Amino acid sequence: MMQQANVPEPLQPVIQRIREGFNEDLEKVREFLRTPSISYTGEGIQETAENVARFIRELGGEARVVPTPGHPIVSGRLDQGAPKTVLVYGMYDVMPADEPDWSVDPWAAEIRELPKLGKAVIARGAVNTKGPLAAFFRAVARYQEAAGKLPVNLLFAIEGEEEMGSRHFVPFVEEHLDELKQADAVLFPFFSEDEEGVPSMTLGTKGILYFELECRGGDWGGPTERGIHGSYNAWVANPAWRLVKALSTLVDAEENILVEGFFDGVKPLPEREEAILRRQVESGLLDERPFMEFDHVRRLKGGLRGFEAWKRLFSQPQLNIDGIVGGYIGEGTKTLLPHRALAKVDVRTVPEMDPEKVAQAIRRHLDKHGFPEVEMRVLNIYPWSKVSLEEHAVQAMLGTYQAMGRTPQIWPLNPGSAPYYVFERILGVPYVTGGLGHGSRQHSTDEYFTVAGMLDFEISMARWLYSYAALAEGRASVEELGWQEG
Amino acid sequence: MMQQANVPEPLQPVIQRIREGFNEDLEKVREFLRTPSISYTGEGIQETAENVARFIRELGGEARVVPTPGHPIVSGRLDQGAPKTVLVYGMYDVMPADEPDWSVDPWAAEIRELPKLGKAVIARGAVNTKGPLAAFFRAVARYQEAAGKLPVNLLFAIEGEEEMGSRHFVPFVEEHLDELKQADAVLFPFFSEDEEGVPSMTLGTKGILYFELECRGGDWGGPTERGIHGSYNAWVANPAWRLVKALSTLVDAEENILVEGFFDGVKPLPEREEAILRRQVESGLLDERPFMEFDHVRRLKGGLRGFEAWKRLFSQPQLNIDGIVGGYIGEGTKTLLPHRALAKVDVRTVPEMDPEKVAQAIRRHLDKHGFPEVEMRVLNIYPWSKVSLEEHAVQAMLGTYQAMGRTPQIWPLNPGSAPYYVFERILGVPYVTGGLGHGSRQHSTDEYFTVAGMLDFEISMARWLYSYAALAEGRASVEELGWQEG
Repeated sequence: MMQQANVPEPLQPVIQRIREGFNEDLEKVREFLRTPSISYTGEGIQETAENVARFIRELGGEARVVPTPGHPIVSGRLDQGAPKTVLVYGMYDVMPADEPDWSVDPWAAEIRELPKLGKAVIARGAVNTKGPLAAFFRAVARYQEAAGKLPVNLLFAIEGEEEMGSRHFVPFVEEHLDELKQADAVLFPFFSEDEEGVPSMTLGTKGILYFELECRGGDWGGPTERGIHGSYNAWVANPAWRLVKALSTLVDAEENILVEGFFDGVKPLPEREEAILRRQVESGLLDERPFMEFDHVRRLKGGLRGFEAWKRLFSQPQLNIDGIVGGYIGEGTKTLLPHRALAKVDVRTVPEMDPEKVAQAIRRHLDKHGFPEVEMRVLNIYPWSKVSLEEHAVQAMLGTYQAMGRTPQIWPLNPGSAPYYVFERILGVPYVTGGLGHGSRQHSTDEYFTVAGMLDFEISMARWLYSYAALAEGRASVEELGWQEG
Repeated sequence: MMQQANVPEPLQPVIQRIREGFNEDLEKVREFLRTPSISYTGEGIQETAENVARFIRELGGEARVVPTPGHPIVSGRLDQGAPKTVLVYGMYDVMPADEPDWSVDPWAAEIRELPKLGKAVIARGAVNTKGPLAAFFRAVARYQEAAGKLPVNLLFAIEGEEEMGSRHFVPFVEEHLDELKQADAVLFPFFSEDEEGVPSMTLGTKGILYFELECRGGDWGGPTERGIHGSYNAWVANPAWRLVKALSTLVDAEENILVEGFFDGVKPLPEREEAILRRQVESGLLDERPFMEFDHVRRLKGGLRGFEAWKRLFSQPQLNIDGIVGGYIGEGTKTLLPHRALAKVDVRTVPEMDPEKVAQAIRRHLDKHGFPEVEMRVLNIYPWSKVSLEEHAVQAMLGTYQAMGRTPQIWPLNPGSAPYYVFERILGVPYVTGGLGHGSRQHSTDEYFTVAGMLDFEISMARWLYSYAALAEGRASVEELGWQEG
């Protein structure tokens, strides 16, 4: 049951209006989900971009569908004469829905009753992230209806290639730097609750360095043009062996990373975040066991458990083999001496590693250990980003969750990677992802969000807009707005 | 130019008859090649087996097409009342000919003029090995026509699954042990000349131990059911790393094998073979450079050259990665923490290694180095085989080559593997592969044998039958028959 404790007086009519209009809002969100907008095929992309632009115009804003070499980015602004401005980041593209075992049409946005969760909208994009995007527009519309105008101005940058790596988003931001720098905070609206109703808040993301290591036959040895008869390995060196030997110098048997300079710059968790983490693990709010169960993992590295496990996840980099391939990989006993072998590797960086220096350190390590012929090709590289717990945007979200009766998990870093450095570093603006609400099965069959969760989401967005403005303008303290460090 | 020096008197009419009948023989061989006999599809298998049986019956022998769980084996005998008996091993199956770039119909056996080589028959199976098999039958027929009967009795075991690993041949031999043990020698007729006209003689084959090493997530760590999000490698061990670390303990950076007990039993080359090898390398008869050029290899292991290189190839085992695979192996930057990784590995064993003990040594090594969770699955295992230079069957072939003006390369071991232990160990009968003649491009487009080479082959087979009988019956010395240790 939701506790609606401590609703500031100006918000009361807004929340009431959200409740009154919710059935209509739900229909509008479902309608939005019924137009496909598939990154990889382009199906429905243009139409959906226009729909997003229309949402912005319906709020009284200006919107443009800005072409890129890929899918367009919807750029918009809604001036409310407020002192503070929030940049709303979002995505209108989705993955394909070609899995054969959807229980309903993925583009019908039908409502079904889910066990334990109640009514839910099932659709591709329900949670990731056309559902929360459309619901955010509805929350803003209700806010305007009830209060006349919003407590902040809004800017919009809604991209259509997130599922393909956001490849034209950074150039877009760089080209629109003057306008976007007017923002005081960035918001990425999202349904942040898990199945138990616990929302989570991440204070940054790890960066990524993704590279390939390839060993081919050459002057050092090995066949240079094609695989040769396997029986000649008595004579001829094997690039697969060479790659294995090179890789094996990078980590020890426990996967401890052995590359000199790899950890340069790594900072421990901020004391306050570490203290919160310890309390959250001790209270059971953060528990690694459900993750292990879901991913079918019986033991963490080094037998880690509890606080030490979480601390590692949130503060340590990794060096992961994503894939390795070489030679004959089919059934049976075909013999071959391959002429090449390839590994795909990712490093997740943490504050304050320099990803370019990490790449250099790995190259230096390979050379020093006698593997100059192993080629290293960097395919993707961008830095970590980190947002302080003290930022108004963050505190407003934490306060909103707590005022609505939820104690959020606080994740000092998202262990995955997202190019949010574009906000923190390029724009120099703090960002926050969030909102109540629950959905799941992104990139899978029967993706959904819960109907009850969407209502909570709309209310939480209204509360966040209100709280953020009040905090940023110095009109209220976070404690007044409901947050207590848990 | 062929030197027909030193033709024993009884052979002279045989060779004359072969020359007279050659055009007819060529047509019969071409006719045989026009019926496909494709292992993998079964196309033409039964008809070709019947054709082989008919060849035997046309010589006056008895033949049966013996069913197996796979393709039949043609079993036959031709009793000539001779003191000695030769088992003719052969294969009537071929690879598919579905490569798109054949210059002629692979089943038409057309004759074309090849640069430097002259007239050649182009067909799937031309050299591997329906061409020499059919030509052998023609040589035997001409021998009978000229001499009344052969100097030896013949047994036949011609299989139809060589291209699929001879999987029913060993059981066939075991079931027909009493009959086949009557043989004093085994002959596998083959066109043994290279493009320069140099025949080679191998005195055995390496054995093989082919196994997979697989690492899956389990109690030790790693995801157990499916790949998980790559960003969890900070927490969860990676089976691909584990496999890489396990593999890397098996060899050093120069691929020197580090497995305790691996080399147990390895014997150096017999002194006489080593002396011959040294002379053949010094004279330029054996030269690694054309092999390196053909296979696009710029450097042998450890910079080996000349005699030391050949000695290694012929006397040392190997531990080769045939293939390795795990995780995401496509284009781009997909991240994944895979739940399994697999390597396919072959060991080529030399006298007198015990392949079962090698497999045990590798398992023990993995356990001792802390990788008990890396599963080892043996897919194929059979021993090396070795035939002495002193065997009459071998000496008769060497004498034949030299009497016909060729100095053969002598390979103490075939670096590849073939299950000829079935002859040497199960039957206890020495075997020899050979015959003059030249063909190439087996398993490829435009497979061929040269017309002139087929004539030499028929004569060489007649000479071998005569010489073998004379040596085995103690009627002549090898020197009398033309061989001088070169």
